[in-house]
Amino acid sequence: MLRVGIVGATGYAGKELVRILLRHSKVQITTITSESYAGSSFGAVYPEFRGLFDYVLSRFDQEELKAKTDLVFSALPHGLSQEKVPLMLSAVEKVIDLSGDFRLSDASLYEEWYGYKHQAKELLADSVYGLPELNKEKIKTAKLIANPGCYPTAALLALLPALKNKLIDLTSIIIDAKSGVSGAGRTAKISFHFPECNENLKAYRLGKHQHVPEIEEQATIMAGENIILNFTPHLIPMTRGILNTIYLRLTENINQDKIFSLYSEYYSKESFVRILFPPELPETRYVTGTNFCDISLRLDIRNNMLIVVSVIDNLVKGAAGQAVQNMNILQGWPEEEGLIL
Amino acid sequence: MLRVGIVGATGYAGKELVRILLRHSKVQITTITSESYAGSSFGAVYPEFRGLFDYVLSRFDQEELKAKTDLVFSALPHGLSQEKVPLMLSAVEKVIDLSGDFRLSDASLYEEWYGYKHQAKELLADSVYGLPELNKEKIKTAKLIANPGCYPTAALLALLPALKNKLIDLTSIIIDAKSGVSGAGRTAKISFHFPECNENLKAYRLGKHQHVPEIEEQATIMAGENIILNFTPHLIPMTRGILNTIYLRLTENINQDKIFSLYSEYYSKESFVRILFPPELPETRYVTGTNFCDISLRLDIRNNMLIVVSVIDNLVKGAAGQAVQNMNILQGWPEEEGLIL
Amino acid sequence: MLRVGIVGATGYAGKELVRILLRHSKVQITTITSESYAGSSFGAVYPEFRGLFDYVLSRFDQEELKAKTDLVFSALPHGLSQEKVPLMLSAVEKVIDLSGDFRLSDASLYEEWYGYKHQAKELLADSVYGLPELNKEKIKTAKLIANPGCYPTAALLALLPALKNKLIDLTSIIIDAKSGVSGAGRTAKISFHFPECNENLKAYRLGKHQHVPEIEEQATIMAGENIILNFTPHLIPMTRGILNTIYLRLTENINQDKIFSLYSEYYSKESFVRILFPPELPETRYVTGTNFCDISLRLDIRNNMLIVVSVIDNLVKGAAGQAVQNMNILQGWPEEEGLIL
Amino acid sequence: MLRVGIVGATGYAGKELVRILLRHSKVQITTITSESYAGSSFGAVYPEFRGLFDYVLSRFDQEELKAKTDLVFSALPHGLSQEKVPLMLSAVEKVIDLSGDFRLSDASLYEEWYGYKHQAKELLADSVYGLPELNKEKIKTAKLIANPGCYPTAALLALLPALKNKLIDLTSIIIDAKSGVSGAGRTAKISFHFPECNENLKAYRLGKHQHVPEIEEQATIMAGENIILNFTPHLIPMTRGILNTIYLRLTENINQDKIFSLYSEYYSKESFVRILFPPELPETRYVTGTNFCDISLRLDIRNNMLIVVSVIDNLVKGAAGQAVQNMNILQGWPEEEGLIL
Repeated sequence: MLRVGIVGATGYAGKELVRILLRHSKVQITTITSESYAGSSFGAVYPEFRGLFDYVLSRFDQEELKAKTDLVFSALPHGLSQEKVPLMLSAVEKVIDLSGDFRLSDASLYEEWYGYKHQAKELLADSVYGLPELNKEKIKTAKLIANPGCYPTAALLALLPALKNKLIDLTSIIIDAKSGVSGAGRTAKISFHFPECNENLKAYRLGKHQHVPEIEEQATIMAGENIILNFTPHLIPMTRGILNTIYLRLTENINQDKIFSLYSEYYSKESFVRILFPPELPETRYVTGTNFCDISLRLDIRNNMLIVVSVIDNLVKGAAGQAVQNMNILQGWPEEEGLIL
Repeated sequence: MLRVGIVGATGYAGKELVRILLRHSKVQITTITSESYAGSSFGAVYPEFRGLFDYVLSRFDQEELKAKTDLVFSALPHGLSQEKVPLMLSAVEKVIDLSGDFRLSDASLYEEWYGYKHQAKELLADSVYGLPELNKEKIKTAKLIANPGCYPTAALLALLPALKNKLIDLTSIIIDAKSGVSGAGRTAKISFHFPECNENLKAYRLGKHQHVPEIEEQATIMAGENIILNFTPHLIPMTRGILNTIYLRLTENINQDKIFSLYSEYYSKESFVRILFPPELPETRYVTGTNFCDISLRLDIRNNMLIVVSVIDNLVKGAAGQAVQNMNILQGWPEEEGLIL
Repeated sequence: MLRVGIVGATGYAGKELVRILLRHSKVQITTITSESYAGSSFGAVYPEFRGLFDYVLSRFDQEELKAKTDLVFSALPHGLSQEKVPLMLSAVEKVIDLSGDFRLSDASLYEEWYGYKHQAKELLADSVYGLPELNKEKIKTAKLIANPGCYPTAALLALLPALKNKLIDLTSIIIDAKSGVSGAGRTAKISFHFPECNENLKAYRLGKHQHVPEIEEQATIMAGENIILNFTPHLIPMTRGILNTIYLRLTENINQDKIFSLYSEYYSKESFVRILFPPELPETRYVTGTNFCDISLRLDIRNNMLIVVSVIDNLVKGAAGQAVQNMNILQGWPEEEGLIL
Repeated sequence: MLRVGIVGATGYAGKELVRILLRHSKVQITTITSESYAGSSFGAVYPEFRGLFDYVLSRFDQEELKAKTDLVFSALPHGLSQEKVPLMLSAVEKVIDLSGDFRLSDASLYEEWYGYKHQAKELLADSVYGLPELNKEKIKTAKLIANPGCYPTAALLALLPALKNKLIDLTSIIIDAKSGVSGAGRTAKISFHFPECNENLKAYRLGKHQHVPEIEEQATIMAGENIILNFTPHLIPMTRGILNTIYLRLTENINQDKIFSLYSEYYSKESFVRILFPPELPETRYVTGTNFCDISLRLDIRNNMLIVVSVIDNLVKGAAGQAVQNMNILQGWPEEEGLIL
């Protein structure tokens, strides 16, 4: 059994990691840390785990990690992760970081969009962006995996075959993104107070969301040309789920069947991407609790546009599930282990 | 025009007061205070009022109240209200306090259930409990009105005719109370964080809710005998509304029609209590945004029990609407002014 | 008092009409019809109106309309409206139709997008599209007003100043539209069954929604050039509210302040459009229950795009409120009568 | 592998059965039937199963059941189940029926509360009420198991130790029950239309719910004396979950610790009942998706009452999960198989 630790285990992604890892046949959780809940059992913090996983939370301790774990999932908030990940890397062999801190190769972009100085720039060059459908080979040998953000995962999987097949005008990409409230994390704020979110809909952080440079960097890699795009996030009165509606100008005439084939073929060997056959359309509930990304494609022939709709569970394929998928690849295990059913 | 002030105007009850008073034909809001938002316009705090009510919030100032207002609504949280109400009373003629601070006649009960020392005990004797359907005459001449709590309003209106008509075993009263989340106020806390409340249901503060002594004191007055009852509140994943289900043992055989008549007759002159004719049952949405309390009565002949279901909007009949109703009575105006449609 | 009738009063728009008209100082509701609930009182169908408006619903009867009403609001579903509106027009002087049946000037487009034959084509030429901010003068003398759809209202108000000022590339318009479930009407269907909508998000009818030709026709009129655009609707797990996020390519360099000024100026005499000053952004809750359309503007200088976000209450500015606004204009009354507070 | 069939697989309980059984290591689903969706794949009806379980639904066919299955779960609606279960019983060895048709031993009570004639009365005597915590021994050898209703499961588990230990006045039992909307099934009705349920709370079927005689019969068996009780259900604006608040008069003085001990001891060998140690209180989210029933106990010493709060997931411990638990017992497998994690 692989001995795994979870650092920052009491946020929503950490909790989801516990849920998934308890089902995984090849790992054992040996350490879970939390600065705010150290000393409490996990079941006391998340009563759904009472009697199922009452392991006691401890403070972060490099020596303990070194002694007890082979692989660490870091589920710390961004800003904090870049402080602790270097310590983890000197203690264990492999780290999968769920924050945004190691996703951008350019530290100056990090500072511009996240608003922090980066204090572990030297790690950026070797960190691998953990989108398995894009980077599977690199992931296999990575030491530090930067697990993708929730919005970027749903966006990049929707863009990947179009970019690889050079179907679209690269200056035309518009991503209208919609997320449930768990995407905002577990910190109580007035904006996420139930009476303020319920029966409400809003756009937020227009042009300023920290996921913009992440999507642009990876889309640029996919296309082989520089991409600047528009990304507009919205807050939906539900707990889980992301749906991205992506608007793209086609560069040539191509019919819907052909696009469907290109996408289906592109993902034919992937377990977690389902291309829906028309007239099916994705809904977030169909992927809730799962590691799937469902994608539909529609040609708007009146405008020569391609509309791609993708959905994921922001806490699974958008966080903990993808992290486990990355671990499975790292370990040479079947990619689906612990993630199907 | 009566010049009214609202102290603590930026909580949910304060906002609802503004909404109602803007429709009222006989008052003008001359002062609104907030310690946290002083200097901002009301429309900046609550953008639904942009362009409709952009009056600027100021800090509490006794002199300003004295100069500018005839009547003050205090919508401060409990604990703080008892500090400020004495200052208001020496500045203006009439104060309607929406907190729990002046509802209990016995300061020691206050200290037991609220957990604060009472620092204005001398006012308790003269404060009038502002449930118009019970205390209309006293309200007319009151100087300080203690506006009832949300749960107590829904409970007491459901109990009043049964107690007055001596229909029930006084040791049998069970109130199963259910409230939307706005009842918890506007302070961000993890318990009211959207992902923690949504798709969830819980009971809370069993046997410890501060509304227990309030209901018991008024029910005791209604019955003319000491009443101790059980009150169990629940948190419902919706923003507004209270529904109380009240279980009562009948002391004699009586049929449902007779009970319906007694209740209908009791409230025949009241504008805001609607007794529903079977098979109608109340739903919270039917009173949302209104000052109505809808009540249904069912006899469970298998157990000789009376089940009373009552609903209100916790922010209207349970707070701001009832406060305006009290003001109307105080001023000798039609009780419905500003409150119907 | 103007005597008004509501035909098809028991849908959500009909109910909202009743709510607004009861507050209106210059009208009296004299007839309300419903085929399914004829014989019931309005308060029996919508218990929130118990005791407030218990007028009895009758079947549609041309003679009764003729005898009792001066103006009729038709809130029938599309398809049925075109059958009955000719009968209304021969009975009363003015008809405001809330369906889609008289919004398109071209009957063949109606048949293509709505899937019905149009049986009252002769009325199309004289029907006036009732968007007051666009057509105020024409509305004043109209006999038949086609009240705009909910999505088109929010979209067109967001586009109008940009089109009039020729700011944008007309081939670039993308409307990502999001609506609460009340937009789907009051008919029980599995798609709108609570457990199927709650905690879910989806796009629907991509490229096929019947509001597409309506938006295109009016946008074409505004621009003076033919417009084909993309419109993608989404279903949001909330009851009320529409938010449209609109993506536009700018044709020239222009800064955000200038755009803000153009929009503010364009609507400077309008009571129901509020242009939000940055950094404010619209949220649907701020317009719930009101006739406002709130609009924000953001320049994405990295892409030379203009992002316009607009919100309305789909049942008020998107239906009943706008219908009353149209009536006010028709009657030469203040446009805000019955609609503010 | 045990070959199992699901008859009526497309309701919410059927879907949940599929979800659980796909995780179960000892069974294989060999037949799934649906009259309305015969010919479609399960993944077409419930797209969350696309690619995971695309087995094709067939019409009910006794011969096919006989040929292909060893055990059948019947998830038909009540009324229909009593028609088909006799056919199933002559085809396979064991049937677990999730409807209410075989839960009452007295056919006349069935006809009174369900409103149907019972057409398979001869099976009632041998059907075993499948509440494992009560009837484990009988379940082991049953041929027909009547899987308990959702409300009764949560109520009876909360009552069982109190009744067995004779702690309470048997005439005092009051059950205030609250359920999410999935409890109403998957049929579209106006009452469960999203805009009618959302932001709403109501009590329904006071004194008439068909679960009353079921709870009374089993409680009577537990107590050894005839019990008539009050049961009042409420509809909560959430999809899943039941919370019952149960009010009981104690017959003697007993402290809370003692009651806690009695309950803990009673369930000490049960895997799916968790008695919460004060001050913990149950919340429905903590059991969502699981087969747990969480129970808390509070003594109200002011009234000498015991308040028991119990929560379950209505579709798991209240339906499909308990059915699988019953199958595990029938087969002599570990009771938790397929049900933990």
